[in-house]
Amino acid sequence: MQSFELNKTDTLRIKQALEDEDENALKVLLEEYHASEIAILFESLSEESREHIINILPADVASEVISEMDAEMHPEKLLEKLHPEKRSEIVEELDYDDATDIISQLPQERQDEILQDLDAEDASHIRNLLTYEEDTAGGRMNTQVIKVNSSLTKKEALDEIIRQSEEMEEFYTINVVDNSNRLKGIVSLKDIIKSRNTVHIRELVNDDFVYVKANTDQEEVAKLLSQYNLSSIPVVDDDMHLLGRITFDDVIDVLEEENTEDILKISGVSEDEELSGNWKEAVRSRLPWLIINLGTAFLASSVIRYFEPTISRLVILSGYMTMIAGMGGNAATQALAVTVRRISLNDLTDNQAYRTVLKEITVGLINGAANGLIVFAFALIYDSNLMLGLVIFFAMTGNLVIAGITGASIPLLLKRVGIDPAIASSIIITTFTDVFGFLILLGLASRLLL
Amino acid sequence: MQSFELNKTDTLRIKQALEDEDENALKVLLEEYHASEIAILFESLSEESREHIINILPADVASEVISEMDAEMHPEKLLEKLHPEKRSEIVEELDYDDATDIISQLPQERQDEILQDLDAEDASHIRNLLTYEEDTAGGRMNTQVIKVNSSLTKKEALDEIIRQSEEMEEFYTINVVDNSNRLKGIVSLKDIIKSRNTVHIRELVNDDFVYVKANTDQEEVAKLLSQYNLSSIPVVDDDMHLLGRITFDDVIDVLEEENTEDILKISGVSEDEELSGNWKEAVRSRLPWLIINLGTAFLASSVIRYFEPTISRLVILSGYMTMIAGMGGNAATQALAVTVRRISLNDLTDNQAYRTVLKEITVGLINGAANGLIVFAFALIYDSNLMLGLVIFFAMTGNLVIAGITGASIPLLLKRVGIDPAIASSIIITTFTDVFGFLILLGLASRLLL
Repeated sequence: MQSFELNKTDTLRIKQALEDEDENALKVLLEEYHASEIAILFESLSEESREHIINILPADVASEVISEMDAEMHPEKLLEKLHPEKRSEIVEELDYDDATDIISQLPQERQDEILQDLDAEDASHIRNLLTYEEDTAGGRMNTQVIKVNSSLTKKEALDEIIRQSEEMEEFYTINVVDNSNRLKGIVSLKDIIKSRNTVHIRELVNDDFVYVKANTDQEEVAKLLSQYNLSSIPVVDDDMHLLGRITFDDVIDVLEEENTEDILKISGVSEDEELSGNWKEAVRSRLPWLIINLGTAFLASSVIRYFEPTISRLVILSGYMTMIAGMGGNAATQALAVTVRRISLNDLTDNQAYRTVLKEITVGLINGAANGLIVFAFALIYDSNLMLGLVIFFAMTGNLVIAGITGASIPLLLKRVGIDPAIASSIIITTFTDVFGFLILLGLASRLLL
Repeated sequence: MQSFELNKTDTLRIKQALEDEDENALKVLLEEYHASEIAILFESLSEESREHIINILPADVASEVISEMDAEMHPEKLLEKLHPEKRSEIVEELDYDDATDIISQLPQERQDEILQDLDAEDASHIRNLLTYEEDTAGGRMNTQVIKVNSSLTKKEALDEIIRQSEEMEEFYTINVVDNSNRLKGIVSLKDIIKSRNTVHIRELVNDDFVYVKANTDQEEVAKLLSQYNLSSIPVVDDDMHLLGRITFDDVIDVLEEENTEDILKISGVSEDEELSGNWKEAVRSRLPWLIINLGTAFLASSVIRYFEPTISRLVILSGYMTMIAGMGGNAATQALAVTVRRISLNDLTDNQAYRTVLKEITVGLINGAANGLIVFAFALIYDSNLMLGLVIFFAMTGNLVIAGITGASIPLLLKRVGIDPAIASSIIITTFTDVFGFLILLGLASRLLL
């Protein structure tokens, strides 16, 4: 499927070489792999082995491995442990934005220590990047960016581009700036190559282009890149001075991050729980939500307590209670997932929001009646009780309508007031279906069945 | 934030011009906007207005608008309605992969009609692409790809690249092929520009590169692109013949799609429900899951029926039942979300899978005991019943351990046998916590409290 991939045998051989402390075998084995494959291999190695391998690798490969390591493997801790000289070599090879991301995870005094050892220019670039919020365009951008002055000729520009590109892996669009580094537009390398030698860049520049300010939210940047099919987007300050660029690979990371947050929040897990974190972290992240849920469960059970006399005269109800509550909860989760995902991909107009709620009410009515009919038939045949069947039919239908209303309208309302709609987790939503489900079932039962 | 964006006033003006049938005003207004902005505007327009605008726009802009339209707006229906001549013009402007995606949504005879009107070369490209499965590399790739023969000199290659790039918006890496179109490697444009005029491409080619077969799953392609930070990836057949390439913007779409599928499946919604679909579609997608859930609810309620004598002697239990079941369901959903998301980002080794289950058991034990203690205190104070409190404490703890075991191990097992782990929706998982929760609570209660 691809020309190289780390297979099980290789992994075992590398582990064996580590165990035998056979440096030569290790070096030969590692040379075969791409840095991102070594980063994947790291997942199954101890911290000591990771450090060992980083020390063996040439600085440029080591830095690539470190930049490819998942944030959850804590590359900053690995960096911290290295010999200062090796560490500086590696950090200087890193792209500034990657170096900043990793270093920003360390405490202030450790950051300063690492920056002191770097050459002055690199240190100042990184220090500058450390001042931006992590989740903004400034925090995501790379300050290494190819730019040419609009007054250059084609020949001069090409030479300049090739000089600047020495340190960069890839470049696609060239930014055009004036004498005070203000962004005037972009030009494609293709257009430069195609033009006559005497042409000036200002004749080729495209001034109808997309850019972002440094404080733009990263999710917004991802949307723009994907909307306009750009491979990179320039970042400017308030006076249009060119600060850096964000490339599509940063955006892929942003999308994965935002999607993880959505799926966790909707399931009542705090968004910053690390997926591979240990049990302590998981308890810290989830226990608060469960305690909130316990509070809402007390609310639901107080409805049941209120109707205890009804239940004690008709114990059969308790079996149906769990059905009504369970079905309501699941139908609400369905409506919630569809609505949250829809909002997170597109903003809805008032009219679209209104029609979404209306649609969910219709869906609740139909799904409720369909399931209500099944339970009605069961009550009629198994419990031989027509009235009980009717009560359950209405409770099921009513609760699935409530599920539709809450599942759609709560995330929409949250979005309207500027709160992340995914926080309307299943925990919040099921409170409504539990409480109302029991109220309808037991309320009707105490009126009609006793 | 960016140099142009459709604001509310513009939208209103365009709508006004549509209403007044003022073609000139409409043309002037539309000229101001990027195709992707017009595609967004389309969301709030009727089908007639969309058709009207497409007919006014020049074919190249119209085709870009159509390729930017969300699949949920059904661009294929818009295309179907256009005058055949206009339609052919637009389809010929589309990238082959976009044209194929859109046309593939139509019934066979409509597809043939559209293809007949196209020029022979375009039609054969699209016919060829239509043979690949939608979710594979072949279904996603674009057959317009820049390639040079490895025997060309630098000068010849540059001319060739510029000639081939006339029809393409962007290109980053050049594919190198032999005389029978077999992919030999890649070369960056940068390396070509930097080299001497007499150098042959074969001296510059990088043969350590990533490629995919046409039948590779699109999710796998997305992983490779993001893992190796590539802006595009070549697609080959079994004999290494170059078929096309997949670019990062296709991959961003894939990621959004896969993430929507995950979040829907985990919430018990069928993965192909369109987020903005109507109620009929929503009922079709969700009712089957709710009926499955009803079946499992019958299972849970049969446990309750079995213990009816216990409940009728101790009605107070029914309030606690809903707490135990509700908390178990939510804790299971938490464990499920974290595990599913983790598996979808990375494959786990056996050892990691084992430790994941172990971690979730620990988390269940701690969160269960913490919540159990609260409910124990409540039962002691409010119901003055020590033994009842103990029973509830053990039921809560036990059920949250079961929540952890099922929430983590069911998706892991599904992954092991090759089924999408996200199918282990909250509906399946909560069955276990309902049934076991009631069994523990009512079983203990009938032994210890009566």
